[in-house]
Amino acid sequence: MKAIRFDGSLRFAVDVPVPRREGEALVQVLCAGICKTDLEIVKGYAGFRGTLGHEFVGLVVESPDEALIGRRVVGEINVGCNRCELCLSGDSRHCTGRTVLGIKGRDGAFAEFLSLPPRNLIEVPDEISDEEAIFTEPIAAACQILDQISISPSSRVVVIGDGKLAQLIIRVLAQTSCNLTLIGKHRRKLELASVAVRHLFQIRDRAEPASILKQVGGEKFDVVVEASGSPSGLPLAISLVRPRGTIILKSTHHATTPVAMSPVVVDEISIIGSRCGRFHRALALLASKAIDVRDLISERIRLDQGLHAFDRAAEPTALKVILEASGENFC
Amino acid sequence: MKAIRFDGSLRFAVDVPVPRREGEALVQVLCAGICKTDLEIVKGYAGFRGTLGHEFVGLVVESPDEALIGRRVVGEINVGCNRCELCLSGDSRHCTGRTVLGIKGRDGAFAEFLSLPPRNLIEVPDEISDEEAIFTEPIAAACQILDQISISPSSRVVVIGDGKLAQLIIRVLAQTSCNLTLIGKHRRKLELASVAVRHLFQIRDRAEPASILKQVGGEKFDVVVEASGSPSGLPLAISLVRPRGTIILKSTHHATTPVAMSPVVVDEISIIGSRCGRFHRALALLASKAIDVRDLISERIRLDQGLHAFDRAAEPTALKVILEASGENFC
Repeated sequence: MKAIRFDGSLRFAVDVPVPRREGEALVQVLCAGICKTDLEIVKGYAGFRGTLGHEFVGLVVESPDEALIGRRVVGEINVGCNRCELCLSGDSRHCTGRTVLGIKGRDGAFAEFLSLPPRNLIEVPDEISDEEAIFTEPIAAACQILDQISISPSSRVVVIGDGKLAQLIIRVLAQTSCNLTLIGKHRRKLELASVAVRHLFQIRDRAEPASILKQVGGEKFDVVVEASGSPSGLPLAISLVRPRGTIILKSTHHATTPVAMSPVVVDEISIIGSRCGRFHRALALLASKAIDVRDLISERIRLDQGLHAFDRAAEPTALKVILEASGENFC
Repeated sequence: MKAIRFDGSLRFAVDVPVPRREGEALVQVLCAGICKTDLEIVKGYAGFRGTLGHEFVGLVVESPDEALIGRRVVGEINVGCNRCELCLSGDSRHCTGRTVLGIKGRDGAFAEFLSLPPRNLIEVPDEISDEEAIFTEPIAAACQILDQISISPSSRVVVIGDGKLAQLIIRVLAQTSCNLTLIGKHRRKLELASVAVRHLFQIRDRAEPASILKQVGGEKFDVVVEASGSPSGLPLAISLVRPRGTIILKSTHHATTPVAMSPVVVDEISIIGSRCGRFHRALALLASKAIDVRDLISERIRLDQGLHAFDRAAEPTALKVILEASGENFC
């Protein structure tokens, strides 16, 4: 089958075996989204080798659980050992023996077919289109913030970053009616965010944290969500958060960040890493149209033009680039 | 009066005016302790200029609250504006307009006299000696951890560092009966810690985090307390904490730390800065002899030998060096 593989360099392959794993379902990929993590893996993050991709919607073509066959599904990307304490408590996201679709020890979704256990697959309600369904995984990741900390209508929250994940985070956080600010570098992306955010600030490249704090009004925030994907995001977050405030770290990147940690100690700041979330909440937001993602799609490109799609996704102005699995399966 | 001042370089002065502030009490310092923060200030941390020192015990000689006069006291080091929301709620420790004794905008305790508002002063019970009372402030800082997170007898906790603060932290954490491990570099200091900790590991200079994890048994910890005062402490803490675990950051230092933050995101780790605590809890631990600090005193040196005392306190094998305020006021 066709697939986008990474083995130290990115390549499009046509001779990849269909991935059948014992006890798992085979899913025909309808379409898939390129995420910042995919771009980071190509730069060396996570040391992954294999078929990339973890945001997808597909049709189940084989499954030990026959009720799934023919269903249109999205899939939880973490596959736990199903034996350890974490897995048995229903959270395989932190199982130390886990594989992760297209990220760790398991071929991913930029292919005609992928394999996942039936327990990872969730049927997509009819109200959600294929291209909307691709956003289930990153919306779930955005929703995870609300499972980790409490945000109320009186909370002053700032999101750093205006990319794909940041755009979903502000749409999710706006559901709490909190006092929400967005800081980004790209005028067009900031404009897109105006559906969810009243306070938008465009900052210059290499602007100093102190001048950015001044630009946003000088008052520090209860919660800072770092979703810029840039090593400069954390030092900026530390400058923007109030004493005893909380920083949510959403960005993964392959870089080492030089950070002055003393303000974290002196101001007793909490920094909380945040990754994957539960899919059901994300599907409910999409099905009810509480969150509209259609304006976040930059482009749709066929799988066999995958290398070109990666180039496009890496452009600073790009939002979600969708890979269509084959000529027959358009989103 | 005599005082140890820092004005870009450390010096002993004999002509420093007695610090009288309106509405405040004047305290004759009996003795004071040199802390890692003092050593960091001399290296440039916090940009402080003035009389150093914030761990002290003294006698109130003047006070608008006359009931305090003649009392033997310790003092909360943060002096808030007493008007803002934080101050009015009883927590001036994070008041943005605060001064901090010997650290920020306020002359400190390495002097014959210091000034603090009466509300900052707490009488020392007779059961506590002068030299024990000096430990009130750092024990309160150690107790702050228990105000920030929940530690139970089943918690696996590791403290990184075997210095003065780490020694107090393990004595405080041992009160919870948690499963406690200490990692340090100095054999003699590790031996001192054996009063509170069963699992002690001496690590080599520049040992890699992965090899240290192996050395301590390979199993990660629920809670890691970083109290080494070294820029390498945070990367080590990240390597030692389990997914969804907590790192308590206790060290302040003037260095910028290069940190790979992706594991914090992927494993959803919480990093919580932790600074000053409430004095009453610390005084209760000292008065009840639940915590013994006497073996943590390296040396007692007269104030006029203060520069020598700083040299001694900076030696890797040193623990608490106590400054005696004058020839007449021995601890």
